[in-house]
Amino acid sequence: MRHDKRKPNELRSVFLGPGFSKHAEGSCFVKFGDTHVICTATVEEKVPPFLRNTGSGWITAEYGMLPRATHDRVDREAAKGKQTGRTQEIQRLIGRALRSVIDLRALGERQIKIDCDVIQADGGTRTASITGAYVAMHQALQRLVDKKALKALPIIDQVAAISCGISKGEGLLDLDYIEDSNADVDANFIMTGSGQLVEIQATAEKIPFSDKEFTNMLQLARSGIHELIALQKQVLKI
Amino acid sequence: MRHDKRKPNELRSVFLGPGFSKHAEGSCFVKFGDTHVICTATVEEKVPPFLRNTGSGWITAEYGMLPRATHDRVDREAAKGKQTGRTQEIQRLIGRALRSVIDLRALGERQIKIDCDVIQADGGTRTASITGAYVAMHQALQRLVDKKALKALPIIDQVAAISCGISKGEGLLDLDYIEDSNADVDANFIMTGSGQLVEIQATAEKIPFSDKEFTNMLQLARSGIHELIALQKQVLKI
Amino acid sequence: MRHDKRKPNELRSVFLGPGFSKHAEGSCFVKFGDTHVICTATVEEKVPPFLRNTGSGWITAEYGMLPRATHDRVDREAAKGKQTGRTQEIQRLIGRALRSVIDLRALGERQIKIDCDVIQADGGTRTASITGAYVAMHQALQRLVDKKALKALPIIDQVAAISCGISKGEGLLDLDYIEDSNADVDANFIMTGSGQLVEIQATAEKIPFSDKEFTNMLQLARSGIHELIALQKQVLKI
Amino acid sequence: MRHDKRKPNELRSVFLGPGFSKHAEGSCFVKFGDTHVICTATVEEKVPPFLRNTGSGWITAEYGMLPRATHDRVDREAAKGKQTGRTQEIQRLIGRALRSVIDLRALGERQIKIDCDVIQADGGTRTASITGAYVAMHQALQRLVDKKALKALPIIDQVAAISCGISKGEGLLDLDYIEDSNADVDANFIMTGSGQLVEIQATAEKIPFSDKEFTNMLQLARSGIHELIALQKQVLKI
Amino acid sequence: MRHDKRKPNELRSVFLGPGFSKHAEGSCFVKFGDTHVICTATVEEKVPPFLRNTGSGWITAEYGMLPRATHDRVDREAAKGKQTGRTQEIQRLIGRALRSVIDLRALGERQIKIDCDVIQADGGTRTASITGAYVAMHQALQRLVDKKALKALPIIDQVAAISCGISKGEGLLDLDYIEDSNADVDANFIMTGSGQLVEIQATAEKIPFSDKEFTNMLQLARSGIHELIALQKQVLKI
Amino acid sequence: MRHDKRKPNELRSVFLGPGFSKHAEGSCFVKFGDTHVICTATVEEKVPPFLRNTGSGWITAEYGMLPRATHDRVDREAAKGKQTGRTQEIQRLIGRALRSVIDLRALGERQIKIDCDVIQADGGTRTASITGAYVAMHQALQRLVDKKALKALPIIDQVAAISCGISKGEGLLDLDYIEDSNADVDANFIMTGSGQLVEIQATAEKIPFSDKEFTNMLQLARSGIHELIALQKQVLKI
Repeated sequence: MRHDKRKPNELRSVFLGPGFSKHAEGSCFVKFGDTHVICTATVEEKVPPFLRNTGSGWITAEYGMLPRATHDRVDREAAKGKQTGRTQEIQRLIGRALRSVIDLRALGERQIKIDCDVIQADGGTRTASITGAYVAMHQALQRLVDKKALKALPIIDQVAAISCGISKGEGLLDLDYIEDSNADVDANFIMTGSGQLVEIQATAEKIPFSDKEFTNMLQLARSGIHELIALQKQVLKI
Repeated sequence: MRHDKRKPNELRSVFLGPGFSKHAEGSCFVKFGDTHVICTATVEEKVPPFLRNTGSGWITAEYGMLPRATHDRVDREAAKGKQTGRTQEIQRLIGRALRSVIDLRALGERQIKIDCDVIQADGGTRTASITGAYVAMHQALQRLVDKKALKALPIIDQVAAISCGISKGEGLLDLDYIEDSNADVDANFIMTGSGQLVEIQATAEKIPFSDKEFTNMLQLARSGIHELIALQKQVLKI
Repeated sequence: MRHDKRKPNELRSVFLGPGFSKHAEGSCFVKFGDTHVICTATVEEKVPPFLRNTGSGWITAEYGMLPRATHDRVDREAAKGKQTGRTQEIQRLIGRALRSVIDLRALGERQIKIDCDVIQADGGTRTASITGAYVAMHQALQRLVDKKALKALPIIDQVAAISCGISKGEGLLDLDYIEDSNADVDANFIMTGSGQLVEIQATAEKIPFSDKEFTNMLQLARSGIHELIALQKQVLKI
Repeated sequence: MRHDKRKPNELRSVFLGPGFSKHAEGSCFVKFGDTHVICTATVEEKVPPFLRNTGSGWITAEYGMLPRATHDRVDREAAKGKQTGRTQEIQRLIGRALRSVIDLRALGERQIKIDCDVIQADGGTRTASITGAYVAMHQALQRLVDKKALKALPIIDQVAAISCGISKGEGLLDLDYIEDSNADVDANFIMTGSGQLVEIQATAEKIPFSDKEFTNMLQLARSGIHELIALQKQVLKI
Repeated sequence: MRHDKRKPNELRSVFLGPGFSKHAEGSCFVKFGDTHVICTATVEEKVPPFLRNTGSGWITAEYGMLPRATHDRVDREAAKGKQTGRTQEIQRLIGRALRSVIDLRALGERQIKIDCDVIQADGGTRTASITGAYVAMHQALQRLVDKKALKALPIIDQVAAISCGISKGEGLLDLDYIEDSNADVDANFIMTGSGQLVEIQATAEKIPFSDKEFTNMLQLARSGIHELIALQKQVLKI
Repeated sequence: MRHDKRKPNELRSVFLGPGFSKHAEGSCFVKFGDTHVICTATVEEKVPPFLRNTGSGWITAEYGMLPRATHDRVDREAAKGKQTGRTQEIQRLIGRALRSVIDLRALGERQIKIDCDVIQADGGTRTASITGAYVAMHQALQRLVDKKALKALPIIDQVAAISCGISKGEGLLDLDYIEDSNADVDANFIMTGSGQLVEIQATAEKIPFSDKEFTNMLQLARSGIHELIALQKQVLKI
């Protein structure tokens, strides 16, 4: 039995609130239980230098946490003057995940900048960020279509993400902070709406894992992402 | 007539939501119209080096804005690797304002760290931050009293802040972003619950102002802060 | 009685030495008592990006202190790799003050960069800087007129600044370091030659102040700035 | 047929040269084909702050590339003043991989610092680094045993790493730079000597992948790591 | 004939003004012609970590230039966030020069921090800095003797510095900026009061030089430093 | 007798290995005894801003050390976020030395970037770097000639460097780390193939030196550089 009574294959209560921001072209307030993230999508009519005059667009992401999003306060990255390795890892991951489902040539020479800011953290901030960021990005792209800046959505598929872990030999879906801290293996899966894999990150600092344990986590992830994809469809009315 | 129908001496709709955060010792979600700020207060049982072994405590503040809190996205300070002069000015101001109503010796050798993070900006982010930060700090101090770490609240008075401006010769209370951009003079006032002045900042980049115009703004501010102090009392039930 | 025998409304001995620098287009060595500042004005025939092709010019300022300008040595900002919040606050203040009396469109697309470097500090470095910077800027602009690069001086008014404080209930003009350290309230006033207000900054970290105390400081400041404006006229022969 | 005539499941020519450095406690010069990395292990008799007085040791890693290790010169990170996100990701990965096979309590309160510096890059720098870093770390730990600072090697298992990819639907082992640039999926696997998984990172920026394709890569990786583990044994004479 | 009518072996007009600063333990305002430098010496009763508990003291130096000390304004190092290589080279040179004439063990576990700040530059800022820094350091040490913190001056010898160059085949002493810019060879010599060499730096970016040309510069330097040593004696009354 | 049996005027075993790198336009692996440096030369078809449209080219250099190149590990500059003063001094020196033998106008508007990375350090890293960098640069320039991008080598002369020292009154050539640490005087000489001087740096932190001692070092350096120039000729087959 999990400490919050969930079944091993049960997601936390998930909320996706598109259109949260007054200013951004696309936005989503996402909750995976007590993990709360604000995702915004900003459209810029220019691309990074390496794409200039290529006809291709770009999707990039930045990630941050409020200093007291966590149980103990962590130093503000802006005050320290640099982003941690963890922050950079996560924002690179978010960017890759979103680019995997976009036709960058159809997007044209413009850039979508995704900002994922964690207001409150309780495990799974990167998977919540990716799942919400897709919604924000979809909104921003739909707005470009509505304004006739794009003929059609340059979207190939949906994308969502979820974490899994192995704790005392059992596979668990969507770990919260306490579970994550005690798990032997921690994995993040990113998949498309059609169930293809986009990214796998599985790490064992404590106890190495077998192929079978990995396969178990992969199946849990597949069912969780299936639910998230459906919820994205529902809130985006697609 | 103001663009949002307010009277010259009328505040925007103000909301103070204490206890917003799952983790922080004190917190407040504050709204001044469309300006939304998360304020948290963190208690640390140690002081900065210059206060060690003095028996005195400290209150300090940090301020930040989500990149897309504003109409156009601004670069993330953590990614640029430094805080702007504006950010530093504001966080120093918040810290001074709070320290002005605290008996630092009665606080003892501990530090309260205030974080004010602007989720959405529409003018007046520093005055909303100060007004909400007081609530978060009060909560954190009350918790120390409840835990018997302090015998009594080391609070001398309440403190709140509001902006004023002069536009086309008329004094206006609590400017939103559009009003602020068009004002000839921009001023911020910080006052205590008993109506004493803690800080005045008045700036004219466009048209210098007279003593009389200043006095008008001071009176507007006094009435606005009176309301904010009452609202703080109400939500803190003091 | 003040520790240096001055009357409450008496400035320290003030010296303004225009043309101090061999290289700069405008310069002024300014002394407010033992506070000594070198102000230079550099003319650059280009503007910051946000003003390109607008026809408008810009005035900006940088501020620094020699490490041993103060009683105890402070770390060199260049060695630490960043400017303190205080430095940034002051240099933004100097820039705003000077821009308030310049017709930036008449200046054309060029920039005046002001450098204020404190050689020795004894209170009031920011007010001395502003008062001297005006002289340096005037010189630089006059040189542009002499070279026929400008038809007329794009100057709307003079500008000068002075500090005031409240100590043991009494208002004092032009605080030196000892007075400043002991004052309950510290205020800086910037005014034009015609006596209009450009900026007010009044801060009480120790004891909040009343409207009446503020008005007293404002009157002291007015008389002090009147003297400084006259001295600027004299050294600039205008 | 691969461009260098290798079979899909064939490693490049691998060289592990322990004891390469005159100064370091442990070292290994590793070559995976034209990818050449210098790995050193430094023993420090103190631990990071979070482990002080816990009785536990630590393994950490840093990674770098000479500016002209690559086909086109990349800017020197020391000159730019910061490490890229990629560098941080890789050095965190190396550290985790090594810690997964060490009994940190048996190591005692000391730290092994691993430096992996890429002299020449041709794909697979992170997997070569991990494979060589194990050898360097083993040497450094053996020296502690030889000096009687440790009673026994605090090593639970060996660890090595290899990359795989999917190109035109086919799984390939140990990609060089050209293959890596053209692959649809890029994956890195880290396993122990006993064949357990320590870390999986699989990424598809171009074409998402199926479970079956993933399983194919996992099998390739297993055979490659088997060979690397054997080679480590041989050069370490264990 | 030199452009300012000096003979090849003639110094510019040199001024050494000890006791320039109100605050510093030792200070000297030094002029080599139009090159003006403020040198201060600060005594700190602690040493850098590598000297703790060794019984030995330390002398270190920092160097800076006001942004408009030069003909064209150079960016402020504090604003850019780092010191140039040139700055670091010069401040390391100043520190070494001063340490060469001090008995660091006799100084005891304290540090003298020298600050050399160039107010106006016209060639030879490093040699003026060293020559003036000696005077400031001497003052600070004398004050320690006067306060009985030291039994005797821990000074082994005096030290001073001068530049030489080769222009159109002719050796020149104490180059100003115009001469320096046009010289084929640029050299700096640091010598003790007794005429021993402490440091030689000779550089030919344009035309390499012969042993004979070098010897000529060395002789010029010797005569110039002889004069500077005498002037130091005179102003210090030793 | 020197600790490694060398005669006072004897170089360590010197190795110059051109063409070491698979990627770089020019490269050389250089050994001065146990000091090992990788030198690469990269050709860029653009120049720094100050040379644009002048028709002139540029040679610049960067220098680094692997963290464990030394007996004790030194912090990685990329991780600390800045290069030490020593690093900057050395890389400026290498650049000047190479520029002194190149006709920059004949090079045309292109830049050669030299990277010198110390793999293992045992004294004399800067002199080994310069001697090897010349070989790498020569290779890169020869390749430009071979590709017809240049009509002829824009090389005026060869250049090489060696260190000398004075220990117990005796002059020594090519100090290793132990000798360097114990020497009273440390000097570096850079000379051309025709025996002219390009740079002299002589420093006495411990005991100042006489003209005669300096002349002795100069003669030792001359003989050592003569050998290095011959070896460069041999490996470059010129």
